[in-house]
Formats: sequence, structure tokens, C-alpha cells
Amino acid sequence: MKIARVVGSTISTIKDPKVANTKLLICQDTDPAGKQDIGKPYVAIDLVDAGTGDLVLTCHGSAARQTPLTKETPVDAVIMAVIDHLELDKKIVFRKHA
Amino acid sequence: MKIARVVGSTISTIKDPKVANTKLLICQDTDPAGKQDIGKPYVAIDLVDAGTGDLVLTCHGSAARQTPLTKETPVDAVIMAVIDHLELDKKIVFRKHA
Amino acid sequence: MKIARVVGSTISTIKDPKVANTKLLICQDTDPAGKQDIGKPYVAIDLVDAGTGDLVLTCHGSAARQTPLTKETPVDAVIMAVIDHLELDKKIVFRKHA
Amino acid sequence: MKIARVVGSTISTIKDPKVANTKLLICQDTDPAGKQDIGKPYVAIDLVDAGTGDLVLTCHGSAARQTPLTKETPVDAVIMAVIDHLELDKKIVFRKHA
Amino acid sequence: MKIARVVGSTISTIKDPKVANTKLLICQDTDPAGKQDIGKPYVAIDLVDAGTGDLVLTCHGSAARQTPLTKETPVDAVIMAVIDHLELDKKIVFRKHA
Repeated sequence: MKIARVVGSTISTIKDPKVANTKLLICQDTDPAGKQDIGKPYVAIDLVDAGTGDLVLTCHGSAARQTPLTKETPVDAVIMAVIDHLELDKKIVFRKHA
Repeated sequence: MKIARVVGSTISTIKDPKVANTKLLICQDTDPAGKQDIGKPYVAIDLVDAGTGDLVLTCHGSAARQTPLTKETPVDAVIMAVIDHLELDKKIVFRKHA
Repeated sequence: MKIARVVGSTISTIKDPKVANTKLLICQDTDPAGKQDIGKPYVAIDLVDAGTGDLVLTCHGSAARQTPLTKETPVDAVIMAVIDHLELDKKIVFRKHA
Repeated sequence: MKIARVVGSTISTIKDPKVANTKLLICQDTDPAGKQDIGKPYVAIDLVDAGTGDLVLTCHGSAARQTPLTKETPVDAVIMAVIDHLELDKKIVFRKHA
Repeated sequence: MKIARVVGSTISTIKDPKVANTKLLICQDTDPAGKQDIGKPYVAIDLVDAGTGDLVLTCHGSAARQTPLTKETPVDAVIMAVIDHLELDKKIVFRKHA
């Protein structure tokens, strides 16, 4: 799984019918403290009612289809958790409600 | 999924018979505003009647075979949506019919 | 799928018995015009009787096992088409028999 | 599989119910001697009771769901071994209990 | 598949029971001539009795579980062949027993 920040959203009227009722959010991976951006952005299906600015966990590949909403759909990334806190070398480096 | 622009197409007469009747488009990932190219180009099967210049969503890996057209075919990327608009940090950064 | 050029071949006498009768070609991804090399080389099973110098399409991951020759074999890349022509921004940039 | 060091942990109260009782650790790949960091960090489900500072093996993709704890869950990385020692060019370069 | 050199090995006493009796080798991808290192090292299950210094082919992802030894195990890379020779642009660039 990747630590990522939700940075936006996308809307498509022409899309594969299997993903017609899903929320598509733009995600940007971050460093393990949730601060610096790393790598390239991507779009993930939201499973946990995340919003812009939230720090989340995304999972990729066939893992993304192991849920009732995404089973047998052309989907390769989902948001599967909203992060509450991150601990690095036994120090808390991120807390959602600081 | 990746935000990508359709930049071209490819034709092959010698190909695996399972993909004989598919449209193969060349895609280039972009930044989340749909403007700058990022990463390497690739070829995806078109599921949504996209054309050169369109901004689309592509999905990769086994996800690409979760459709009637691509089921059990040697295919690892499909175009599964044409993007209507992109929103970043609550501002609209791309609209198809501007 | 990736646009790649066949640059060589490999022979192994000690190999998993399931891939005993396959042709293993060395491939190098190229830019969408089929000219500049990009990324790292890899080895793919040939499905379409390609040869050194040919421009081909390769597919990767579980997609590579969606054919009678490669089903249930330890194979993660195949050549699934020989490219006849490539079109970029509505101009033909590569034609096999120029 | 990747050689990685456990560098931290993450807690989420809002997450997919299938991963409710799993331990999510932050991992950083290292060079084959277990010393220098390489690449980007990620989050993996712990299968072997690893802790911060341990050198471990992680596996990725659908491989991560080949265990009772992770079967049919939206999970794409697990810690499947704690490394006891690493040997490079026939010299031991890492030993857990030095 | 990737052309790689076996550079070492790893031993773990604490590991997922399904991989208890496997040999875990450290691999480093090389250029298509088998000479220069490219990319990051990784650990693969040995299927063909390879040893340190051998040039091998590795396969990745779900392909790695298409063998009796690795079926339904948390494994994402295997060594599936020992390379005898490599040919680039119709010249032999590597021969095992030179």
C-alpha cells in the first residue's frame, strides 16, 4: 500500500458502465511522514469516503478488486483507509486531528 | 488509473487472434491537470471510442481484462473513461468542452 | 502494451519444463515513433514469429499467460503483435515496409 | 521479494473492514547488504510479527494475498519473512544477532 | 522476464510456512549482454538450482506462482532459467562456458 494525499477529483460521463457509480479521486504519494510528494499522481476509486486533503492508504493492481464495489471492474487502484496517525522510528510524525 | 492523453494509434496485421478486432491507441500519461507529459508512452485497447487528443483514464494489469471485449485476451492496458473535467485543490483545471 | 524492438535472443538448456519449447527474445522499449530506446530491456516469449529488428507490441504481467502457448507457465512478458505502422498526431511515423 | 527495513507504523480507524485486524508497517527497501535505503517507502501487512528496525522480506501484488490473513482482501504488500542473514559474493554482509 | 545475475543469498528462520523449504537468492538485473548492473536488486525463489555468479532469467508477479513449488505461496519472483547464451544484433555476447 502507498501513503498518499487526495489532491483532487475527476468526472467522466463516457466510461465503462461497471464503474458508473464510483467516486474517482486524484492521489499523490507522499513520503512516510505524509509531507513531501513523491512519484507520479494517479486516480483511485474511493472506498472510505475520503476527501481532498486527506492522507490515505491506496492499494494497487488486482488487490483493488477485492471489494464488493470494485469486484470484476476495470479498476487498478483504490483508497482503502484514511490514515489517523503515522509513526516513524517510534515518534509520531502525523496525526489527523492535531 | 492514470490520466493520459491519446497521442496516436498503431496497426498490426500479424497479431494474437484474440485481439484482432480491437482499436489500439498510443497513450501518454500527463500531470493531474492534463497538461504536462509524464513517464513513458504505452498502447491501450480503446473501450470508450476515444480519439487522438482526448484526455482519458487508463487502467493497467489484470484490471484491463475485466470487460467483455478484453476478457482472457493478452491485454495489459485499456482506456476505460474519457475525462470531462479535472478538479485539483477544489479548482477546475481541465474541462473537455471549454 | 509497450512498443518495443526485438534486439536479440537467449537460449537456456536449464529451464522450467513448462517453457521448454518457447522462443525467448530480448526486447527494448522505444518511443512512440519506434526510434529512440527508452527504459530497460527484458525477455519476452514470441507468439507471432517475430525476428531481430522487428518493431512489436509486448504485453506484461498476467496478460502474458492468456494464450494457449503460455497458459499456466512462469512467463511475465509476450510479444503479441508485429507493428505495421504507427501514427502520431495524425501523421504516419513508422511503416514496416517503407 | 524485496529486502526492506521496517521504519514505522500506521493506524487507521476508517478502513476497509477486511483489513480491520491487521498490523500495517511502513517499509523502506534497502540495498542487498541491508544498509542503504533505495526507492520509495510503502506500507505492508505484517505476517511474521516484525518490529521497527527489523530487516525483512516483503512480497508484492497478488502474491500478498496468498495467506489466510490476507486472502481476498484489498492488500498489495506483506512482510513474509524476518531476515536472519544476508550473503553477498559468498561473504556474510548482515547477521541479525551480530 | 529479466536477465539477472545471482549475487547472493538470504536465510530467514521466521517466515511464512509456505515458503519454508525454498532457496532464496539475491538477484541483480543486468544489461542484455549480462555485463552492467541495471536497476534495484531483489530476492527470487530458485527453481533451477542456480548459484552465485550465474546469469539467469527471472519472472515476476503472479507468473512466479505457476510452478508446483510456488503455487499459492506468497512469492513474487522466481528464477526460471539459467542462461546459456545471449545474442544481440546477431552476435553472441555471452556464453556460459566460454
